[in-house]
Amino acid sequence: MTTSLSGFPELLPAQRAVELAVLDQLRTTFELHGFASIETRAVEPLDALLRKGEIDKEVYVLRRLQAKDDGADSGLGLHYDLTVPFARYVIENAGHLEFPLRRYQIQKVWRGERPQEGRYREFTQADIDVVARDTLPFHHDVEVARVMAEALASLPFLPAMRLQINNRKLIEGFYRGIGVPDVAAVMRTVDKIDKVPAEAVSRLLVDEAGLSPEQAAKCLQLAQIRSTDTSFVSRVWGLGVVHPLLDEGLEELSAVLEGCAGFSNGRITVQADLSIARGLDYYTGTVFETRMAGFEQLGSICSGGRYDSLASDGKTTYPGVGISLGVTRLLMPLFQRGLLTGSRSVPSVVLVALPTEEARASSDAVAQLLRARGIPTEVAATPQKFGKQIRYAERRGIPFVWFPSADGAHEVKDIRTGEQVPADFAAWMPPAQDLRPRVVVAPTVTATATPGRDEPQ
Amino acid sequence: MTTSLSGFPELLPAQRAVELAVLDQLRTTFELHGFASIETRAVEPLDALLRKGEIDKEVYVLRRLQAKDDGADSGLGLHYDLTVPFARYVIENAGHLEFPLRRYQIQKVWRGERPQEGRYREFTQADIDVVARDTLPFHHDVEVARVMAEALASLPFLPAMRLQINNRKLIEGFYRGIGVPDVAAVMRTVDKIDKVPAEAVSRLLVDEAGLSPEQAAKCLQLAQIRSTDTSFVSRVWGLGVVHPLLDEGLEELSAVLEGCAGFSNGRITVQADLSIARGLDYYTGTVFETRMAGFEQLGSICSGGRYDSLASDGKTTYPGVGISLGVTRLLMPLFQRGLLTGSRSVPSVVLVALPTEEARASSDAVAQLLRARGIPTEVAATPQKFGKQIRYAERRGIPFVWFPSADGAHEVKDIRTGEQVPADFAAWMPPAQDLRPRVVVAPTVTATATPGRDEPQ
Repeated sequence: MTTSLSGFPELLPAQRAVELAVLDQLRTTFELHGFASIETRAVEPLDALLRKGEIDKEVYVLRRLQAKDDGADSGLGLHYDLTVPFARYVIENAGHLEFPLRRYQIQKVWRGERPQEGRYREFTQADIDVVARDTLPFHHDVEVARVMAEALASLPFLPAMRLQINNRKLIEGFYRGIGVPDVAAVMRTVDKIDKVPAEAVSRLLVDEAGLSPEQAAKCLQLAQIRSTDTSFVSRVWGLGVVHPLLDEGLEELSAVLEGCAGFSNGRITVQADLSIARGLDYYTGTVFETRMAGFEQLGSICSGGRYDSLASDGKTTYPGVGISLGVTRLLMPLFQRGLLTGSRSVPSVVLVALPTEEARASSDAVAQLLRARGIPTEVAATPQKFGKQIRYAERRGIPFVWFPSADGAHEVKDIRTGEQVPADFAAWMPPAQDLRPRVVVAPTVTATATPGRDEPQ
Repeated sequence: MTTSLSGFPELLPAQRAVELAVLDQLRTTFELHGFASIETRAVEPLDALLRKGEIDKEVYVLRRLQAKDDGADSGLGLHYDLTVPFARYVIENAGHLEFPLRRYQIQKVWRGERPQEGRYREFTQADIDVVARDTLPFHHDVEVARVMAEALASLPFLPAMRLQINNRKLIEGFYRGIGVPDVAAVMRTVDKIDKVPAEAVSRLLVDEAGLSPEQAAKCLQLAQIRSTDTSFVSRVWGLGVVHPLLDEGLEELSAVLEGCAGFSNGRITVQADLSIARGLDYYTGTVFETRMAGFEQLGSICSGGRYDSLASDGKTTYPGVGISLGVTRLLMPLFQRGLLTGSRSVPSVVLVALPTEEARASSDAVAQLLRARGIPTEVAATPQKFGKQIRYAERRGIPFVWFPSADGAHEVKDIRTGEQVPADFAAWMPPAQDLRPRVVVAPTVTATATPGRDEPQ
């Protein structure tokens, strides 16, 4: 991994093999659920990028070096997420798309932020969204949560993950039920709960959001509720607040939690977390965040939620629900700490040895026969002594060296065990787990995990 | 396909499925030959991008919108190819890389050019290169040509391709052998042979490049030599020119041609073409170009060659040889003419029907069992009448609709044939060719091919 330009990380080949394995697995999971790949252009008109008015997303503006008029060609910037471009794509292509549309989008995005761990200027996101015309049934909230939980569960080499789910209707219904005057102000204040002590939040709720001490206490009690099953419902009921929107939110959150229950295991925890407030002001129902054990300081590595209006062209509204996984944010810290790497720096499973330069054609022929059976193979670059050719393989992590023989008595050596056996190029296969570079987890991966504020209580 | 921003094409889902199939096949071929994936950041320092001094590559310069000092953050531009970034990556990471290094790189690049067919402002390239430290044996020239020929041969749905190979040593040796005073000037003039008549080129060679009429005639005779086998060698010899560099070039070009002979078929033609002059001024040996039948006006869709110094850090030189395939340039004209599309707009092979909203859990369960066996499956969005659910599948190109049954008597319907049969979700498999969206070639693909200047004589 190199960092010659701050915020623009690059991977060495063995690390890139890990990233590819992750992206392949994400794609496999998304496609098994019928999500179609799309890509959007890297640029959007600046006014579209700035419409949301979030100044924390520093946009990179483009200018053609040779443009005669400096300003003529500007008006374009690099996208900072995949949601703004997708919304534009939906509007532009609505006549050619089938709704509900399930799409995944795995692309680079750019933000001119101050680089730090977990924050990059160029990074890869993997987004899934379901978007519909006019109305989008609630069961799609369950679907996207389930698909992303399944995707994360299918990456066993990653640290433990906690999917934290909340629902804006639940929170807003509760606040309205206790007579909160300014729902958004209370959400913003409760969001500070992981930075300042509960008493301070309580004071802010009274002093700034205009709540009574009793109302403030209820809000804090609500924010402390977490459960991995639907027991959160009775705990909310226990607070004695009644509102139809609260009931709707409780029902939705229960459904999402039950839908994901099958993916909870020792490594993946799916929980209702009623303290999740970030995002509640722009999402309209379900809200997701995800923390990685030992890396809580990175913030959420996988977030999303429900928009009642993902896109609109004035006549038609397109509601959507989706989750975005920060692939770079997830992998970089693991690479930086040496916790993950690939088993080799090349795809090759086999190095065909080269006895002499004159024998290149026959070594090439053996290699081509192995490739024809799906075995990534390279031929030694030069006819060095076999010991040197074996070290050539070793340095790249290639597990097998093939020794061709003019009389047909070929042999193959597993250089990890030293075992060398006769082999037939028309029949020999490496073990299935050697066909692709494997993801190697450093044994220290759990030892270095540092408990953060978000550790399960 | 939409073009809401000129030069920045985007694909509809079924077209993207075709692009993915192409990229997957390229990756498979490259990896079978031991080429490792790398990606480089999208940006490079402007001075690195402009070092080559080619003003025809219009660079996009970046600026952070919020940058206090307008100039402070500039100095970065989007890469316009994958060679400049790769050379920089090799220098920066040399201590962590194993040489010879085989790498493939499939990424977007950006050029602020005037958009036209075959010219985009954002497009995808797929590059393979082999780079070494100090010296790179010639057999790698044969290797990269062979790998790219194999990759193109493995995309049977593309129009016929002609790989045209030349060698700078051959041309330069020949020119020196006849006593040409300025080799580069003659190369530049001969390059005009496809735009102006031969007599005009001949006159330019005499008037501007300072050749005698006899020398000019020899140069034109050389440029007219083409052959799909090594017969070009005797035709060059027939011109009676002798030079050691010419011999070396003839030998190299013969070796590349023989190495690729196995991939020539009705669709892929590999030929020595001694008129290829473009690139001869910056490559140092082998030069490749590729024309697509019926699309000669696009120019070369796949080009490359040998650099004796791909990169250098002042102390060490890294020679390289590589080829770059213009994926967007190749596919876009086919999409635009409706010559290629995907068999469906979603990955789903199966739509599980939904008898009632209450039955969603059991339809979901069937879908999940099919997915567990690798079958991309989605569940109907709403419990409409089955006729409507079948049309839902039809509109997306999903070939099978699964009808679950409470009593276990499931059935599956191939909606293309109408055949509906009992099916067991633990055993049923779709035909292998239905598992992924297929690439569909319009029957007009040859009819619309217009003969161009490059058609075989």
